[in-house]
Amino acid sequence: MILAKKIQRMAERAREAAREVAIMPTEAKNHLLLQMADALLARKETIHKQNQKDLKEAWQKKLSPALTDRLTLTDKRIEEMAHGLQEVSGLPDPVGQIVKSWVRPNRLEVSRIRIPLGVIGMIYESRPNVTVDAAGLCLKSGNAILLRGGSEAFFSNRILGRILQGVLKKDNKNPDMIQVVETTARQGMESLVRQSGTIDLIIPRGGEGLMRWIERHSKIPVLKHDKGVCHIFVDEEANLEMAEKIAFNAKVQRPGVCNAMETLLVHEKIAPHFLPRIVKKMEEAGVEIRGDAGVRKIVPHVNKATKKDWSAEYLDLILAVRVVPGLEEVIRHIQKYGSSHTESIVTENRKTAAEFLRRLDSSVVLWNASTRFNDGGQLGLGAEMGISTTKLHAFGPMGLEELTTTKFVVKGNGQIRE
Amino acid sequence: MILAKKIQRMAERAREAAREVAIMPTEAKNHLLLQMADALLARKETIHKQNQKDLKEAWQKKLSPALTDRLTLTDKRIEEMAHGLQEVSGLPDPVGQIVKSWVRPNRLEVSRIRIPLGVIGMIYESRPNVTVDAAGLCLKSGNAILLRGGSEAFFSNRILGRILQGVLKKDNKNPDMIQVVETTARQGMESLVRQSGTIDLIIPRGGEGLMRWIERHSKIPVLKHDKGVCHIFVDEEANLEMAEKIAFNAKVQRPGVCNAMETLLVHEKIAPHFLPRIVKKMEEAGVEIRGDAGVRKIVPHVNKATKKDWSAEYLDLILAVRVVPGLEEVIRHIQKYGSSHTESIVTENRKTAAEFLRRLDSSVVLWNASTRFNDGGQLGLGAEMGISTTKLHAFGPMGLEELTTTKFVVKGNGQIRE
Repeated sequence: MILAKKIQRMAERAREAAREVAIMPTEAKNHLLLQMADALLARKETIHKQNQKDLKEAWQKKLSPALTDRLTLTDKRIEEMAHGLQEVSGLPDPVGQIVKSWVRPNRLEVSRIRIPLGVIGMIYESRPNVTVDAAGLCLKSGNAILLRGGSEAFFSNRILGRILQGVLKKDNKNPDMIQVVETTARQGMESLVRQSGTIDLIIPRGGEGLMRWIERHSKIPVLKHDKGVCHIFVDEEANLEMAEKIAFNAKVQRPGVCNAMETLLVHEKIAPHFLPRIVKKMEEAGVEIRGDAGVRKIVPHVNKATKKDWSAEYLDLILAVRVVPGLEEVIRHIQKYGSSHTESIVTENRKTAAEFLRRLDSSVVLWNASTRFNDGGQLGLGAEMGISTTKLHAFGPMGLEELTTTKFVVKGNGQIRE
Repeated sequence: MILAKKIQRMAERAREAAREVAIMPTEAKNHLLLQMADALLARKETIHKQNQKDLKEAWQKKLSPALTDRLTLTDKRIEEMAHGLQEVSGLPDPVGQIVKSWVRPNRLEVSRIRIPLGVIGMIYESRPNVTVDAAGLCLKSGNAILLRGGSEAFFSNRILGRILQGVLKKDNKNPDMIQVVETTARQGMESLVRQSGTIDLIIPRGGEGLMRWIERHSKIPVLKHDKGVCHIFVDEEANLEMAEKIAFNAKVQRPGVCNAMETLLVHEKIAPHFLPRIVKKMEEAGVEIRGDAGVRKIVPHVNKATKKDWSAEYLDLILAVRVVPGLEEVIRHIQKYGSSHTESIVTENRKTAAEFLRRLDSSVVLWNASTRFNDGGQLGLGAEMGISTTKLHAFGPMGLEELTTTKFVVKGNGQIRE
C-alpha cells in the first residue's frame, strides 16, 4: 500500500513536470542532453561501481552469459549512451511542427501541430542503456518519463537515473521529468500500469512473459514491442547471389534480435538450385536448418520442421525453411504464422515485388534488402524507442515523432456554427 | 458460453474479411457505398417498421424524450444516412497514400504508406445512424467492422446491418466486413472486448458508464470518445460583441453535444462590462448561470457555483462562469478541471492568443471561434467516427485517415547490414 501510494505520487509529479518539458524551448532541451552526455562520461567510475553490484548478483543467480552480457556497462557502452544523447540533441525537435494546414470555406484557418504525448511509462528488462536512451528521446520530444527496469539491473538503472536527474537539478529544471522507479517489487510495476489518470502511454520492452503480463494488467494504452517472426521469400525470379547474401545477413549477422529472419520461403522452381548452396552456407556458420518435406527432398540431411517451427521466434542460429509454389502461398503462410513485424522478398520481377509489398501488412516490408533494416536508425528516424508491433499510433520503429500526437489549432475572426 | 463462442467466430470472420477489404480497389468501395445509400432509401418502410419496435419498447420503458428522439429514424434521418454514405464515397481513399518517402545514404528507398487498421469494434448507444456512418467510414478506409449498439436500438441496428450486408452479398463481396452483433446481452460486449487476437481497436461512444466499463474490461486498445468540459476565455482585450456571439453560440446552439461550452472564464478587467450583457442574453435563452464570487459581485442574482460545477459536463442549458485575473489562471483552471477536449480564447491580442493556443494541450484549441467547430465535418475531415479524447493515435475528430496506420515500404538492390 505504501509502495502503491509512492508510485502514484511519482506519476502525479511526472504529470506536473510534463507540463514544463512540453513547452521547453528546443535549445534548452538540447543543452540538457549535452550536459547529460558529459555527466555520464565524467562519472564512469561511479557507474561501474553500481553496475558491479548488479553483475555480482547476476553471477550468484547464475544468469545466462547472454543476459549477463546485456547487463554489463563497459566503458565503450557508457560512451555509446553519451554519444546517443548527443545525437538526439542534433535531431530536429518534433514539438510545434506543423503537420498540415488548410483554410475552410468560412475562412477558419486550421492546422495540426505536434505536441508531446505527456507522461510515458517505460517498462523494460536487462539492458540499462534503455534508461538513458529512452530518457533522452522523451526529453527531446517534450515528454516526462517513468522508467521501470528489471530487478537484475536495479543498481545500474538507479545510478543512471540519478545522474540524469542531477543534471536537471543543476540546471534548475524540474527533476521529475525523468524518474527511475527504484523498486524491484512486482507490485511497483502493477501500481505503475494502473495510473491511467496521469500516465498516457506504457511502452514495454522485453520477453513474452512481460508482454502478456502488461497486456493483462495495464489500464493505460500500451504500445507493445513484441516478437518478430520475420520471413524472407526467395522468388523464382530472384538473383540467387543476392538472395544468398540477404538471407545470410538476415539470419547470421545478429541472430538474437527481433528483426532477424526466422523463416525462409523458397519458390519451388529455384529450390533445387538455391537450397543446396544456402543450406551449406548457413550450416558453415553454425545454423541449424529445419525444413519441410519439400526442403528435405532436395537437402535430405536437414532436420524436420514441425508446425511449431513456423511461428517460432528462435532468436538463435536456427532457421525454418519451406518450399512454396508461389506468391499466393507465401502470403497465406505469412498471414497465418507471422507476427506482422518484417518481411522481405528477393526477386527481379517488379510486379511480384509490388504485390508482396502491397498485400502484406507487416510494419516493414522490403524488396531486395535484409530484414535487419527494420530499425529506427537504419531507416533514418535518427534513434528509436523500440519497434512497435501494435498497429495503433506507431507501427514499426518508433522515433521522436512517434512520441508525439497532434492537436488542431484553429484561428478565426468570430466564426460561429449556424 | 455459446454466445462467447459466437462472438469469437464473428471476430475471426471479420479478420478474414478485413484482408479482402484492405486491398479492395477504391472504385469498388465507392460503388458499394453508393449501392448501400440506394438500398437504405429503397427500404425506408422496412426500416420504419423495425424502428417502431424499438420506439414501442422505449415508450414502455419510459425512456427520456431526448433518448427517444435520438432513437427515432424519420424519413429525413434515413436520407441523411444515405447522403452520408454518398459523401464518403466522394472522399479521397486514404489506403495506399504515401505519407512520406526518402532515400537513405545506402540508397535504400523508404516510404511510409497508409494501410487500414484491420478490424474495428464499435460500441455505441442509442443513435442507430452510427451503424451506417461507422460502417461507411470503415469500408472506405479498408477496415472490417463489428458493430455493437445499445439494446434500446436492437431492431433498428439489426435491420440497418442486414441492408448493408445485403448489398455486399449482392455484389459478391464478403459480407463479414460489416457485422452487427445481434444480441443485447452484456456478455456480448464482454466477449467482444476480449478478442485481442482478431480485433485491432475498440471505439466506444456513449455515456460515462459505458466508458468506465470499457476501460476496465477491454483487452484491446481503446480510443475513447469521452466527455467534453469545454471552456471559452474572454480576454481583457476581447472584442466584446464577438465574444458575446461566440459564447452564446457555443452554449445555446446545441447544448447536448460534447463540443458545447460548459465553463465561461471572463477577465476581471472586462467582467463589469461583459458579464451583465452575456448573462442577460443567456438567461433570455433559458440558460441557468452558476457563478463564482467574482461573478456574483457583478450579477448578484445568479446561482452560486460549487467546486463540482468546474468539472461538470452539463450537456444542458446550464453554464458555469468564473472571473479570472488573467491567462495564467485560465491555463491553471483548464489544466485542473478540463477534459482536454476543446478550448477557445476571444481576444484581439495576438500574443495572448498564441500563448493560449501553445500551452493548452486540448485536442482542438481555437482563437476567436466557437467551440462547436470541434467536428470532423466542420474542420474539413469530410466525416467522422467521433471525437477521440485519447491522445494516442488520433486526438480530436477522427476521419478516414485516423482509421489507418502506416507501414514502411523499403526498396533496395541487395543491401545488407554491416
